Amino acid sequence: MNCLSVLEDHRTVREFLPDPVPEEDLRRMVHLAQRASTDATAQLYSFVRITDRRLRQRIADLAGGQRHVLEAPEFLVVCADVHRLERLLAFRGVEIATIPHLAFLFGTVDAALAAQNLAVAAETMGYGIAFIGGIQNGPDELVDLLRLPRGVYPLVGLCIGKPARRPERRPRLPLEAVLHENVYRGYVEETLEIMYNAMAPVSPTGDWLSILRRYFGRGGRMASREDVVARTLARQGFG
Amino acid sequence: MNCLSVLEDHRTVREFLPDPVPEEDLRRMVHLAQRASTDATAQLYSFVRITDRRLRQRIADLAGGQRHVLEAPEFLVVCADVHRLERLLAFRGVEIATIPHLAFLFGTVDAALAAQNLAVAAETMGYGIAFIGGIQNGPDELVDLLRLPRGVYPLVGLCIGKPARRPERRPRLPLEAVLHENVYRGYVEETLEIMYNAMAPVSPTGDWLSILRRYFGRGGRMASREDVVARTLARQGFG
Repeated sequence: MNCLSVLEDHRTVREFLPDPVPEEDLRRMVHLAQRASTDATAQLYSFVRITDRRLRQRIADLAGGQRHVLEAPEFLVVCADVHRLERLLAFRGVEIATIPHLAFLFGTVDAALAAQNLAVAAETMGYGIAFIGGIQNGPDELVDLLRLPRGVYPLVGLCIGKPARRPERRPRLPLEAVLHENVYRGYVEETLEIMYNAMAPVSPTGDWLSILRRYFGRGGRMASREDVVARTLARQGFG
Repeated sequence: MNCLSVLEDHRTVREFLPDPVPEEDLRRMVHLAQRASTDATAQLYSFVRITDRRLRQRIADLAGGQRHVLEAPEFLVVCADVHRLERLLAFRGVEIATIPHLAFLFGTVDAALAAQNLAVAAETMGYGIAFIGGIQNGPDELVDLLRLPRGVYPLVGLCIGKPARRPERRPRLPLEAVLHENVYRGYVEETLEIMYNAMAPVSPTGDWLSILRRYFGRGGRMASREDVVARTLARQGFG
């Protein structure tokens, strides 16, 4: 299948057929994830595949009772990882620098580049995927459950499986909203109005604001996660 | 071209033909970048396209004199961006929550997912790409040059153009090194040795350690960037 069509046709799949993902397909996805660019050849990420049902149930609960986390044939936790690098250096007698901010920056970029390759590979092979940000409700518990050493932080989950239903594609901002030239162009009110109009099909009532407010407004979901995320990042050695 | 082959064949291109990238190709890449998954529909990223030659020269210098930053027909700065979201919410009378850690986490993940889609789209269309981590040498100066408002942080650069030369593909760690099951599996010495062997083809002398040490060892490149990155993140409102 043409790669541009695969990218164009992406949608988040939340209803999966129970068919297992053959081991060789999963390995091919991870292999292609590894082909993504990585800063300074360091590959600062790990995937934790969750096959244990009780563990999966616990993560689904953590993520706010998302059934697809439990029901997806495969579920991976995508992690920023400098622990492996630290071990590699120590094994050769080299001490890793104290770089909590850079480690998080490059670990997160490396992990997301690889995860997006994995998602594109999965979709090319006929699978559907859903990224799960809801694991940020309880990263501290996830660190314990998955026994993540210092230097490893769980960023997002990733559901993979054959789609039982393919929902409509979600709208996106106008291209001009995300592309600047030479300097960052601020947003005037007219442009903001155009953005709301472009995003209106995101909900049946045409109300993008209610989604944004629920997540990002004061007292919203992100606010309730901030303290535990800050604490867990510090515990894992990230700035 | 088959999408799995595009992912498989990725290599970083650092020598470009001078041919300009047609505007419609660039727009198609950005459009497909926008199709990537994004947490809570928020699209927390921006691309700044650098067409000004003096600005490009300054960024190439910042990145350590990388000629391909100057010579690539297109160069984008990939940014995590919660400024636009803040403006969107404020426009409707909603105050954004104080979430410096989550904003950076989801902004960076969103930006990297989109950037990887852009890279895959470019490669499908016959272009070569190089991600440029070296902009972290001077994120403070980049914030000034690109006039990035609080809420926007420059993560990586991205060179795009027709390849003048396609280098060999770089090696990657064994798949087992990045894939865990249910719990994070630590690394024993034998495994670390296998990793060094797998990565040896990364340099003519078979010496992966020297690259890792140069970047990540005490007194290395990452260490020299840590303070300015920490300071610039704080200045831009990220935790």
